[in-house]
Amino acid sequence: MNTDALKYPGSRRIYVSGTIHPEIRVAMREVTLGESVFPDGSTEPNDPVRIYDCSGPWGDDSFTGSEEQGLPALRRPWISARADVVQESDGTLRADDLTAPPTQRSYALRGIITPEMEYVAIRENMGREAAFKAVYDRFPHDKTRPESAQWLLDELGTGMPRPSELEAQEGFSPASMANRANLSCQHPAGQYPGGRMPAFFTPEFVRDEIAAGRALIPANINHPEAEPMIIGRNFLCKINANIGNSAISSGIVEEVEKLRWAIHWGADTVMDLSTGADIHRTREWILRNSPVPIGTVPMYQALEKCSGRVEHLSWPIFRDTLIEQARQGVDYVTVHAALLHRFVPHAARRATGIVSRGGSIIAKWMMLHRQENFLYEHWDEICTILATYDVAVSIGDGLRPGSIADANDFAQLAELEVQGELTRRAWAAGVQVMNEGPGHVPLHLVPENMRKQLEWCHEAPFYTLGPLATDIAPGYDHITGALGGAIIALRGCAMLCYVTRKEHLGLPDKEDVREGVVTYKLAAHAADLAKGHPGAQLRDNALAKARFEFRWEDQFNLSLDPHRARQYHDITLPHASAKKAHFCSMCGPDFCAMKLTQEIREQEMNVRKS
Amino acid sequence: MNTDALKYPGSRRIYVSGTIHPEIRVAMREVTLGESVFPDGSTEPNDPVRIYDCSGPWGDDSFTGSEEQGLPALRRPWISARADVVQESDGTLRADDLTAPPTQRSYALRGIITPEMEYVAIRENMGREAAFKAVYDRFPHDKTRPESAQWLLDELGTGMPRPSELEAQEGFSPASMANRANLSCQHPAGQYPGGRMPAFFTPEFVRDEIAAGRALIPANINHPEAEPMIIGRNFLCKINANIGNSAISSGIVEEVEKLRWAIHWGADTVMDLSTGADIHRTREWILRNSPVPIGTVPMYQALEKCSGRVEHLSWPIFRDTLIEQARQGVDYVTVHAALLHRFVPHAARRATGIVSRGGSIIAKWMMLHRQENFLYEHWDEICTILATYDVAVSIGDGLRPGSIADANDFAQLAELEVQGELTRRAWAAGVQVMNEGPGHVPLHLVPENMRKQLEWCHEAPFYTLGPLATDIAPGYDHITGALGGAIIALRGCAMLCYVTRKEHLGLPDKEDVREGVVTYKLAAHAADLAKGHPGAQLRDNALAKARFEFRWEDQFNLSLDPHRARQYHDITLPHASAKKAHFCSMCGPDFCAMKLTQEIREQEMNVRKS
Repeated sequence: MNTDALKYPGSRRIYVSGTIHPEIRVAMREVTLGESVFPDGSTEPNDPVRIYDCSGPWGDDSFTGSEEQGLPALRRPWISARADVVQESDGTLRADDLTAPPTQRSYALRGIITPEMEYVAIRENMGREAAFKAVYDRFPHDKTRPESAQWLLDELGTGMPRPSELEAQEGFSPASMANRANLSCQHPAGQYPGGRMPAFFTPEFVRDEIAAGRALIPANINHPEAEPMIIGRNFLCKINANIGNSAISSGIVEEVEKLRWAIHWGADTVMDLSTGADIHRTREWILRNSPVPIGTVPMYQALEKCSGRVEHLSWPIFRDTLIEQARQGVDYVTVHAALLHRFVPHAARRATGIVSRGGSIIAKWMMLHRQENFLYEHWDEICTILATYDVAVSIGDGLRPGSIADANDFAQLAELEVQGELTRRAWAAGVQVMNEGPGHVPLHLVPENMRKQLEWCHEAPFYTLGPLATDIAPGYDHITGALGGAIIALRGCAMLCYVTRKEHLGLPDKEDVREGVVTYKLAAHAADLAKGHPGAQLRDNALAKARFEFRWEDQFNLSLDPHRARQYHDITLPHASAKKAHFCSMCGPDFCAMKLTQEIREQEMNVRKS
Repeated sequence: MNTDALKYPGSRRIYVSGTIHPEIRVAMREVTLGESVFPDGSTEPNDPVRIYDCSGPWGDDSFTGSEEQGLPALRRPWISARADVVQESDGTLRADDLTAPPTQRSYALRGIITPEMEYVAIRENMGREAAFKAVYDRFPHDKTRPESAQWLLDELGTGMPRPSELEAQEGFSPASMANRANLSCQHPAGQYPGGRMPAFFTPEFVRDEIAAGRALIPANINHPEAEPMIIGRNFLCKINANIGNSAISSGIVEEVEKLRWAIHWGADTVMDLSTGADIHRTREWILRNSPVPIGTVPMYQALEKCSGRVEHLSWPIFRDTLIEQARQGVDYVTVHAALLHRFVPHAARRATGIVSRGGSIIAKWMMLHRQENFLYEHWDEICTILATYDVAVSIGDGLRPGSIADANDFAQLAELEVQGELTRRAWAAGVQVMNEGPGHVPLHLVPENMRKQLEWCHEAPFYTLGPLATDIAPGYDHITGALGGAIIALRGCAMLCYVTRKEHLGLPDKEDVREGVVTYKLAAHAADLAKGHPGAQLRDNALAKARFEFRWEDQFNLSLDPHRARQYHDITLPHASAKKAHFCSMCGPDFCAMKLTQEIREQEMNVRKS
């Protein structure tokens, strides 16, 4: 694999240590910025910006491992230290005692702050504390009178004033304000149902959210390679990318490449939806090389074991498949247990019936056998298996609408209600839970989805596929999905499953995956800004400042896709000198709005001085 | 120009005649669909779908004109028949009497339903009446007892029931229901501020919206080539694409090609933002070949006349430029008259200052001359010029935020308030008005923009640039803009100015324009679905049905970009037989959710029969 394509320019890997657990080292990417040059020739440095990083050891230049070796078992010592698991002869770990299962939920309920919890607290803060301190130290106030900058310190604990409110403050100047905009301007947070976004993430806050069921850390004890990450409405909105071979597609090496590619661009979790041959071996390669949680739909493999004959499916086959995957290290599984027999006729009468693969498999099984869904019937046994390995469950929405016409219909909402019942029962077993959601939904019906899920599923995290805002844009469905995704995420949806531009049409290639991941990353980030995630706007501010000051390299390096930003710039102005030019190709040198404003600003300063 | 690239497969141009004005022929594109084949081998035809078409004569296969000749003067006879204009020696038309100016607003206030108004009423209905009738005629009810299908007729006047509500109806069968889904399923409309979406668009409704100032038909009497279109919150949301050469870019032929390309993909209006040489001649070519309204920012040309020296700008130079453009046929002009001298210091202190070109020009002029904005000072004279030719005004937002940090700040909102004052004064002169809006706005602050514009600008249509939901995605800003665009449009924003993926980085090429227009088209459509535009969901339903029935060609042909949909499909399954395959490349033949559902549906029908 061409590893140069997997590097971010102007960036370096850093690690931040824990306090409760000093041994943890939280990986982040730090973007180094150039200095600002003001019209009078003076300069000012710009603080580096720390960015949430999903790429794991693969994103660390000093990492020398290979795909054959797999990643280091980061969490192995943490798991061992808890002394609540037993090791089987093949090295697989399992719970020693299911009355106190080795799940993050169980620890949280018992008041234990695990290394995983502190890890995600530090990770979510994205170095904001350090950024604050840097500005505070540099800000022109009397260092012997800390109270003279008390208002700045206050920002740490509460909201942040806007530049316009700062004018009256001591030490204000356009130049220093411009620099401060890098950090301290953040809009008051928007409201969202069930929202309680903190000013800083503490390990205790993380524990409390997990204990309440509002968040989960998918972290199978047999996937110690994974770096902890958290899914919950009061954290950064996460995104999932799907990979997996199918009957007519790819091999194992390619799947691991897809994994590394997806996490490079920012996929927070990856689902392996393989349906073809070699499912087990493919998954082994993926797990051993994945620093992000891996999700699966075990039903796909169960069906492969029946050679695709739905009628031959059975609870024992499913159970054995689930155990196989849990022992292997799968971090979360989609289980379509909420699709009941009596809902099937409703779904069959829809405009586009059942479009979930897992949903249609179990629905067909029920129709053939005239029996209730065996996943529902055996739910408690499923939960016991999941608790044994700390596999989280993503309760599937087999009846998600496959078209605008079917959105929010009886079939969909009936299943959602059952998801709520199953959520409670999984929690009772100590299992971490999220709920899957639609699908195709017109924008004005999106809020109802979020409201009902929040209420009926007891505030468990929601994990939606899009939703796609219209049916008429095949070839652009990464965008139709990002529209619905952003809208549901700003209302608190915790994770978005990406949709590529090939959705409904074909299998995504590498460029489709890149475009899909970046598109969902920007939708999630737009929602984080709207929810007022305390670290979200810092990057926007730094990029906007770089843009305004014509620091082209910084603008590229701070963007979600630096390669594309640079490439698009260079198509029109390819020469290196253009990277320092105080204009861009859009208006040309004589007609630049940014440049005109800088002249106005300069003039304005002169007027004030005179 | 390769005209094959400008054809829609499976489509033909049709024309619908008027009733009040029988001579008008409203252009639409009609997509012919294949028949449904049910599992039992029976078949059923699918009604053609009529699609709003912006391409004008260029989209009519039988049109034989050339770019050298220009388009036919469609509206010339309508304008002449009103007998309220005089012709100058060079053929330019102008108002005869400004106490009753030849503007659509003035006609509307005088109770006159113009051909333009009836044209847009028919155009907005998108053939929905015909589609209804076709289904009514085919629906299995006793034709001698019309009352047996009264509920179906009722749909014409009111909302439409959902398939699940139709089960109890006479003559119901899954097959006919599936066919009816093509038409009759539409979700109850969402609420939006100032909304009054009708079940059908009548010429009187159009007149009333224009008279109230809630909508406008940009239609300069000197641009008779343009087909009438309407901009207002209670109609389809429109999109604008920008073209125009700049100092470092393209020539005239290329600009006309860009125009044709943009309207092919669905641009409802086009703004010519040329700043380089040959501005007048470029615009002449564009106007004579444009079936859509053309907008400009006259300040750009005025500045060219001063060789780019802002200090040399003056009211007489601007006035003469405005008259020149109005006489030439420009349909709407952006005028940055609401940016007052006292707002400039506020803007200079922002994170990213002034990012509007027009705004920065006039701001610099004010700073240099220490005088009030001459556009504001001469507003009434500007309005007189505009009324003389029925040029609509788009009151510019020179202080729109250029970053998330600056969103909804004092500078932006101060200008918006003045836009409201100028709106009233323009209306008093008989001028049609819209207001320009941001810019860069985090999603939770978007609604405030719409609310304040609605209130402060007296319900005049809002026309926004995006807004972009984050700053961190250069290279993907067509998507960040579509996110904010969809959210403000579903709240009633009447027109979205597109942003291409090259925004902030470089000049868009043809592929960027295509991607940008289609992206904004889908965002606008998503908003139309949410607002409950009565014709919006018909196309989604038809496409979803085609998808479910594996009518691949129909799915491609109904999509916003049939070429791309087909191309993406063919990358994975290139063979012609795959266009008839009852599966797609995503899951392969043995694992298809759609196919499984069709089996379930079939089984379900058998269960009912037995």
